[in-house]
Amino acid sequence: MPERPVYVGLLGLGTIGTGVVRLLQAHGPRIDERLGFPLRLKRIADIELERDRGVPLDSYALTQDWHEVVDDPEVELVIELIGGDGVARSAVLAALKAGKSVVTANKALLAHHGPEIYACAETYGSDIAFEASVGGTIPVLRALREGLCADRIDALHGIVNGTCNFILSEMEERGETYAACLKRAQDLGFAEADPSFDVNGMDSTHKLCILLGLAFGLHVLPEAIPTDGIECVTPLDIEYAERVGFRIKLMAIAKERDGGVEAWVSPTMIPRDSVLGRVGGAMNAIEVRGSMSGPTLYYGAGAGSLPTASAIVADLMELARAGRCGVKRRVPPLGTPVLREIPLRRKEDLEGEYYLRFSALDRPGVLSHIAGALGEHGISIASLLQLERHASEAVPVVMMTHPAKDAALRAALAEISHMGDVLAPTQVIPVEREI
Amino acid sequence: MPERPVYVGLLGLGTIGTGVVRLLQAHGPRIDERLGFPLRLKRIADIELERDRGVPLDSYALTQDWHEVVDDPEVELVIELIGGDGVARSAVLAALKAGKSVVTANKALLAHHGPEIYACAETYGSDIAFEASVGGTIPVLRALREGLCADRIDALHGIVNGTCNFILSEMEERGETYAACLKRAQDLGFAEADPSFDVNGMDSTHKLCILLGLAFGLHVLPEAIPTDGIECVTPLDIEYAERVGFRIKLMAIAKERDGGVEAWVSPTMIPRDSVLGRVGGAMNAIEVRGSMSGPTLYYGAGAGSLPTASAIVADLMELARAGRCGVKRRVPPLGTPVLREIPLRRKEDLEGEYYLRFSALDRPGVLSHIAGALGEHGISIASLLQLERHASEAVPVVMMTHPAKDAALRAALAEISHMGDVLAPTQVIPVEREI
Repeated sequence: MPERPVYVGLLGLGTIGTGVVRLLQAHGPRIDERLGFPLRLKRIADIELERDRGVPLDSYALTQDWHEVVDDPEVELVIELIGGDGVARSAVLAALKAGKSVVTANKALLAHHGPEIYACAETYGSDIAFEASVGGTIPVLRALREGLCADRIDALHGIVNGTCNFILSEMEERGETYAACLKRAQDLGFAEADPSFDVNGMDSTHKLCILLGLAFGLHVLPEAIPTDGIECVTPLDIEYAERVGFRIKLMAIAKERDGGVEAWVSPTMIPRDSVLGRVGGAMNAIEVRGSMSGPTLYYGAGAGSLPTASAIVADLMELARAGRCGVKRRVPPLGTPVLREIPLRRKEDLEGEYYLRFSALDRPGVLSHIAGALGEHGISIASLLQLERHASEAVPVVMMTHPAKDAALRAALAEISHMGDVLAPTQVIPVEREI
Repeated sequence: MPERPVYVGLLGLGTIGTGVVRLLQAHGPRIDERLGFPLRLKRIADIELERDRGVPLDSYALTQDWHEVVDDPEVELVIELIGGDGVARSAVLAALKAGKSVVTANKALLAHHGPEIYACAETYGSDIAFEASVGGTIPVLRALREGLCADRIDALHGIVNGTCNFILSEMEERGETYAACLKRAQDLGFAEADPSFDVNGMDSTHKLCILLGLAFGLHVLPEAIPTDGIECVTPLDIEYAERVGFRIKLMAIAKERDGGVEAWVSPTMIPRDSVLGRVGGAMNAIEVRGSMSGPTLYYGAGAGSLPTASAIVADLMELARAGRCGVKRRVPPLGTPVLREIPLRRKEDLEGEYYLRFSALDRPGVLSHIAGALGEHGISIASLLQLERHASEAVPVVMMTHPAKDAALRAALAEISHMGDVLAPTQVIPVEREI
């Protein structure tokens, strides 16, 4: 091939970075053939260069200093896989300012500093792509940015954290506790040694921030998104969900209605027979509802070295093509040049159905006390799932509500928590039927 | 907006064409905002101009002659929704030769004349986009062309005909015959008055031809793809499938292995609990298996006026952007500049598991005769689903085979068909477990 190569620099040689190297080595010739010119990884930076990653690295210039990669005038494209928003932010901004386009999988960086980064790219005529930051290998950001760009998106329901989906799927299949299934996830490599960001929902919230940008043209900081993790989900909740035809999934949800957008991350009951309800193990799926397109769904591996590398190198190829034909920023990073000024609805104004599990003393009148307090706040009970007498003193009182305002629910629950009959904090899980 | 508009011409104002007009009218301002310049439908051609389509048409120049649209020097982009490969082919080629880029949803045209059309676009520096030709609203062609472009695709399993999926889903849910469910599909508008191309599998085969191009870089004519429709599927087959945890779907399947690609369209048994198995009603879904990305799946409305229009206008926006920034053909229509010369495997060489239902006389020894003939051709029985005595004379003998060669199976079945015990042609349905 007579064409001059496009040279690439890689920052961060962890699991995903190693996957990128492996993919480029395995599929190099077919990638060059597709592009019509050679794509060449030239420089790699990582603070730890000694460890054996199981791939030959001798054809690359290795360094511990990311500047050496970004400053190489031959390097046109930079892949940032450092993670976090410290060094990663500096390196991404430096590359963009040098006119180099960047591929990143860094959801925390984009969730916190997206607007700064997109503006920097615009100012310096460079570009940024981040397909791998949400849904791993699934090309869902492309679908939102281009495939559905003619439509107005009304809602988005995502299972975007594989660790949580694995744990919840295991809890259901084995009837085991959260702690036991987290342990298994760690043993199998589906969860980090410190899984906090996954299980507390924050990883999903970062991804939801990015999805909000692409689907609704909105910039929202993670702190503004109500976020609940999966730590409090019990086998009892999963069993009750099953009885009424639901499954508990950690959902990232966004909807636009009545002139506002609502967005939240929470364990959520969804119909078990829906396509999203069938997404098991560590897989991810995002359902998008458009005003004309209706529901579309995107499913695949949300993590993993090679699946994530596939998304990263696809971005790399798109940016390489753009550079080669001299047209960067063909499409703005969020698909629209103008972000919208539309308010995020306050949590207390949200309305939905809920699953409630009270731990109550098995005394006469306990249900009437609870139901009374709910009724006083305008919350009506759609069905009562359980009120059997138990051998032990505490009995779960489980119900599904009709649509209710979050604020009213919280007020009722605060009242109920002071009742002598009620022992532990009430379990609250939103219910989404329309999936 | 001070920018000069990009003008569009539309050929064919049927259901889909009207959907395009409706979408452009509803979402015009947001589309212009996203693009940063106005996109304007200027001319529409249709042989029938009198019928009321329920949308205002007075801002467009209407004509019965497609040349007037294609020949207008202001029209930069042409949408072809004429259908078929007669006039449609002439009009598409004329537009491409005039340097205009084309959006089409015409799978028959691309399946039969794809290479001619792609070559014409290349020669004349124009471009062609056809997202709506497969999977309606689902941006699966984009996913293959760009989202998964770094990977090697190993297999593809698609439910790509909504009419067939609706009929099979209804047959399962209601236990009714094919004829009754086809009638209901027609009453509900899910099937044409003449549904032949849908139910005989040919529509799926056309779509599979396009998918083969994008996923495997292969041009295959529809005639080369073994195609079976759903007309012969009976409630009995659906019931047996259910008993063993399967569902019958009309599948378009392609796999690359052992240096060849196999491709076929057939009613197929797939696991009912798989994500594909959950795709009900008139919905479509395509599962793609990549060597690095693993399985990804794309789901949504496979037909319908507005969902299809969403895909068409998304293509239109991509081509409008390309024209505006002066870079047409950023990515080749099939994602690769070089088609591959890899043989399509012959049907007789294919190997798979099969569901077989024999109609036999309820006489002693009938099973041993059938099993004997299968065994002689090296086909072993994995499980026998039914051999009960029936009130009537004919009894269904139903079995699942272990992996067997198609040629061996056909030879065995030919032999069995001559047995006096065997009454009707044997029902053969392939089984795909790995979905």
